[in-house]
Amino acid sequence: MDVIRIIVAGARGKMGSEAVKLVQRTENFKLVGVLDHKDGGKLLNDVSDYDGEPVRIYTDPKECLENCPADVWIDLTAPKAGYHNAKAALEYGVRTVVGTTGFTDAELDDLKAVAEEKGIGCIIAPNFAVGAVLMMKFAKMAAKYFPDVEIVELHHDQKVDAPSGTSVKTAQMISEARTKKTQGHPNEKETLKGARGADFEGMHIHSVRLPGLVAHQEVLFGGGGQLLTIRHDSFNRESFMSGVKVAVETVMNLDTFVYGLENILD
Amino acid sequence: MDVIRIIVAGARGKMGSEAVKLVQRTENFKLVGVLDHKDGGKLLNDVSDYDGEPVRIYTDPKECLENCPADVWIDLTAPKAGYHNAKAALEYGVRTVVGTTGFTDAELDDLKAVAEEKGIGCIIAPNFAVGAVLMMKFAKMAAKYFPDVEIVELHHDQKVDAPSGTSVKTAQMISEARTKKTQGHPNEKETLKGARGADFEGMHIHSVRLPGLVAHQEVLFGGGGQLLTIRHDSFNRESFMSGVKVAVETVMNLDTFVYGLENILD
Amino acid sequence: MDVIRIIVAGARGKMGSEAVKLVQRTENFKLVGVLDHKDGGKLLNDVSDYDGEPVRIYTDPKECLENCPADVWIDLTAPKAGYHNAKAALEYGVRTVVGTTGFTDAELDDLKAVAEEKGIGCIIAPNFAVGAVLMMKFAKMAAKYFPDVEIVELHHDQKVDAPSGTSVKTAQMISEARTKKTQGHPNEKETLKGARGADFEGMHIHSVRLPGLVAHQEVLFGGGGQLLTIRHDSFNRESFMSGVKVAVETVMNLDTFVYGLENILD
Amino acid sequence: MDVIRIIVAGARGKMGSEAVKLVQRTENFKLVGVLDHKDGGKLLNDVSDYDGEPVRIYTDPKECLENCPADVWIDLTAPKAGYHNAKAALEYGVRTVVGTTGFTDAELDDLKAVAEEKGIGCIIAPNFAVGAVLMMKFAKMAAKYFPDVEIVELHHDQKVDAPSGTSVKTAQMISEARTKKTQGHPNEKETLKGARGADFEGMHIHSVRLPGLVAHQEVLFGGGGQLLTIRHDSFNRESFMSGVKVAVETVMNLDTFVYGLENILD
Repeated sequence: MDVIRIIVAGARGKMGSEAVKLVQRTENFKLVGVLDHKDGGKLLNDVSDYDGEPVRIYTDPKECLENCPADVWIDLTAPKAGYHNAKAALEYGVRTVVGTTGFTDAELDDLKAVAEEKGIGCIIAPNFAVGAVLMMKFAKMAAKYFPDVEIVELHHDQKVDAPSGTSVKTAQMISEARTKKTQGHPNEKETLKGARGADFEGMHIHSVRLPGLVAHQEVLFGGGGQLLTIRHDSFNRESFMSGVKVAVETVMNLDTFVYGLENILD
Repeated sequence: MDVIRIIVAGARGKMGSEAVKLVQRTENFKLVGVLDHKDGGKLLNDVSDYDGEPVRIYTDPKECLENCPADVWIDLTAPKAGYHNAKAALEYGVRTVVGTTGFTDAELDDLKAVAEEKGIGCIIAPNFAVGAVLMMKFAKMAAKYFPDVEIVELHHDQKVDAPSGTSVKTAQMISEARTKKTQGHPNEKETLKGARGADFEGMHIHSVRLPGLVAHQEVLFGGGGQLLTIRHDSFNRESFMSGVKVAVETVMNLDTFVYGLENILD
Repeated sequence: MDVIRIIVAGARGKMGSEAVKLVQRTENFKLVGVLDHKDGGKLLNDVSDYDGEPVRIYTDPKECLENCPADVWIDLTAPKAGYHNAKAALEYGVRTVVGTTGFTDAELDDLKAVAEEKGIGCIIAPNFAVGAVLMMKFAKMAAKYFPDVEIVELHHDQKVDAPSGTSVKTAQMISEARTKKTQGHPNEKETLKGARGADFEGMHIHSVRLPGLVAHQEVLFGGGGQLLTIRHDSFNRESFMSGVKVAVETVMNLDTFVYGLENILD
Repeated sequence: MDVIRIIVAGARGKMGSEAVKLVQRTENFKLVGVLDHKDGGKLLNDVSDYDGEPVRIYTDPKECLENCPADVWIDLTAPKAGYHNAKAALEYGVRTVVGTTGFTDAELDDLKAVAEEKGIGCIIAPNFAVGAVLMMKFAKMAAKYFPDVEIVELHHDQKVDAPSGTSVKTAQMISEARTKKTQGHPNEKETLKGARGADFEGMHIHSVRLPGLVAHQEVLFGGGGQLLTIRHDSFNRESFMSGVKVAVETVMNLDTFVYGLENILD
C-alpha cells in the first residue's frame, strides 16, 4: 500500500489526539504536520506525549499546507475553524476528512462546490464510530420488515440532553424505510407520566442516564414471536477512530463530496 | 417426602390449568379435587385434557373440602371468589396458597386472623415467578450500595398500562433501601417529551411495548466505572409455577400468614 | 392487492398449522386447499381447530393441484415428500415456497431446473424467521469492518446438538466477508478445557443450554473501544411466519429459483 | 462523620493512583502519607498529578507509620510487599484494607493472628468491585431455586487465561448452594469441539475475548418458562474503588480479620 501523508488539525484536542495515535499505529499512514491554536513553530514532540517522528505545529492552515506536502487533511477542530480549514485544504488540492459537526447548510454547500470543482474527495461525518453507523444502517434495513421498533439509549449521567443525537438520527433513518404506524396498544395509558418514553413519529425512544455508563444504544424490532436487537456500545473515544481510518482510505479514491459515514460503508 | 394432597381452585383457568400440570408432574404432590364455576360433579378428565388419576369437579368450596381430604388449597380464581374460597379452606383447617390479586386490606386482615386462629399456614402472593421475585429482592439489596438505578420493563404491545405493576413494585422495594436522591444531571432537559421516562422518587422507569415480547424487566445500577444489571425474562405462564411449588412446600411448615413470595425465599 | 390463492402442504404439522393461521389473517391471502397424509376428502374445518372458509384435505398432490386452482404452494412437510410435492406443483405451473430442509444437491438442482423451464418462482429456505436471516445478513456486512467476532447461541436444554445450525450458518456467511484471522491472545490458554468455545476458522462459537430458553443468538463484533451486537430471539414458531409471508409475496414476481431467505430480503 | 486518616501503599500504581483519587474526593477521608518504592522524601505533589494537600512519600513502611499518624492503611502493592506492609501496619495498631492477591495460606493466617491479637480490623479482598461481588452473592442465592446455570464472561483479547478468575469464583460460590446436577441434554453432543464451554461440576462457563471489551460477566439461570440474568460490567479501574470505600468505612468498626468483600456486604 502506498503511504498516505496526513495533517491532523486539532491535534491536541480529545478527538485529535486519538487521531494522532491512529496515524502513528497505522502502517501506511504518515503524520507530516499538525494544526493547533497555539505553540506554532514548536515540535509536537516537545509539547505533548507524542513520541513519533518529529512533527511541527502550525497555527495557520495555509502555512501548514505549504510546508507539509500532504494527501489528506483530518479536521477535528470546532465548526467555525473546521469550515475554514477544510476549505483551505480543498482549495490547496488536499483531500479532507472532517469530524466536526455543526456546519450550516451554506457551509456544506460551499465545501461540496470546492471539492467537486477540484475533483477530489471530501468526507464530512458527524459520527465516526463505525459500529454506531452500522447500527443505524442495519436499523433502517430492518425497519422495512419490522415496523414496530423502540430505541433505548443509555449514557453517563453528565449528559444534559435527552434523547441523544444518535437516537434521533437513528429514528430519522428508520422513518425513511418504515411504513408509518402508531405503536403500542391503541388505548395504552401511562399511570406514571413519561413511562412510554418520547414519541418520534409513533416510535418510542427511552433515555437511561447512570454514572458508570459511557455511550450505548439498543434498537429493538418486535414481530410475531420474535425480537431483533441491534446494539452498539462505545466504551471510549478510540471507537471513533475506526471510522476515521475507513474515511482516510476511502477519500483517496473519491472525486466528490460525501456527507455521513453511512454513505461510504458497504 | 410425604405426599401433599392438593385441591386446585380455578383449575381450567390460564393459571389454574398450569397448576394442575405442576401437581401432576411433581412426585410428592397429589391432586385430590378441583373447584370450578361449572361442570360440578363431572370428572376433570372428561371435560379437559387432564389425563391423570380421575378427579372430580366441585362448584362449592365447602362441598369440595368435605369430599376431598386435602393438605393444601391452591387458589387461582378471581379476587371475590378467591377470598371466600381461601377463608373456607382455612376455616376447614386446610393450608392455602393464593395467587389471586386485588384483595382489599380488610380481606387480607380477615384471612390473616383465620390463619393465625387455626395456627396454619396461608401464603398470598401477587407474583409467583421465583425469578421475578428474586430480581426484586436483589434489586433492594443492591440499592444500598448503588443509589443510581433505572428500570426498563418490556412487554407485548397488547398491554394497556405503563409502567407495569412489577416495575412499580420493584421501585417501591428499592426505595425502602436506597438513600433518596434525584438522578441524572441537575440541568437535564428533554428535547422530546418523555424521553427520560417516568419518575418514581427520583428513579426512572421506562416501558417498552413491542409485538413478540412477553414479559421482561431489567434493573440497572450504575456506579463509578461499573454497571450491575438484574434481568428477568418470563417467556410463558409456566414461569409462575416455580413459585407455586415453593409456596406449597413452605406452607406445610408455616403456622401463620405470609404476604409476598419474597418473604418465604431465603 | 390481488388475492393470492394458496395451498398449504403439511397443514396440521407444527409449522403448517402456523402457516394456515398466517394465510387466514393476511388480507389478500386465500386458502384454497390443503395437503396432508391422512383424512383425505374431509374438510379441514372438521378435523382441526381451523375455523375459516371450508377447505378440503387432499392426500395426493396432483389431485390437490387439479381440484384447487392456486397461485402458490407452501410446503412445510418432510424432505422426501417436500421434494415430490414441490416438483409436482412447479410442473403444474404453481409457484412454490418450501420451508423443508434436508434436500440433496441433486434434488435442489432438479427443482431449479423445473422452475426455470416453467419460468416461475420457487423459493426454498431452511430458515423463515426474518429476524434471524437479517441477523446473519447484517453479521456478514459488519464482518468487513470488524474481523473480531464471537457468537453466543442459547437454546432450551432439550437440544442435543451444539453448536446450532444457525450459528454455523452465520459463521459461514461471516467468513465470506471477513479477513481471516485467529482471534484472542496468541498465547491464550484454557485452564478449564472448552472455555473458549468452538473454533470456526478462528471465530469462536459458544452454546448455552438452559431450561426456559427457546432459541436465541448473539453475534458480537469487537473493535477499538466499541462493541456491536446483533441479537435475535425467537420466542415461538410464529416467528417463522414472517418469512413465509415475505416469500409468498416475492415468489409471485419471481421467474426463477432462489435458495435462502437472505437472497430475497433487501 | 469523623475524619479517617489514610495511608495509601502503592500510590502510583494503577490501582493505588485510583485509591488516592478516591481518598481525595471522599469528604471524611484524609490522605496523610503514601508508600512507594522510589522517590522517598519527595512530595507526591511534585512527582505525580496529585494536586491535594502536600503529602510525603516514604519507601519504608515503619518510617511511614511513625511519621504519619493514620487510622487505615490501604495496600495496593504486590503480594510480597503487601504481606510485610500489612503486618507492619497491624502491629503498629493501624487497621488495614488490602487489595493485593496471591497471599499464601500461611501469610493469611499470620495477618489474621496479628489483627486478632491487636483487636483491630483487617480486610483482605481479591476483588473490590462491589457490583461484581454482589453478582456473585446474588448468584449463590439464586442457585438454591435455579439449579440450571451457565456463566458467560467477556474480556478484552489481551487476557491470556480462560475462564476468568471471577467466573471460577462465581461457580465455586454457586456450587455451595446448588443441588448438584449435570446440565444440558443427557445425550448432547458437540459437532464442533468446545461449543458447550468449560464444565465446572456440571455448570458450563463460556469465555468471550474481543478487542474493545473490558471486563464483563453474565450469570444465567434458567427454569420453566423463565430466565434470570445477573450481569456485571466493569468499564474501568474506578469500579474497584467502590469496594475500597466500603472496606475503609467497615474496617473502622471491625475488631477482627475478614477475607472477601462479600463477607462485609449485607
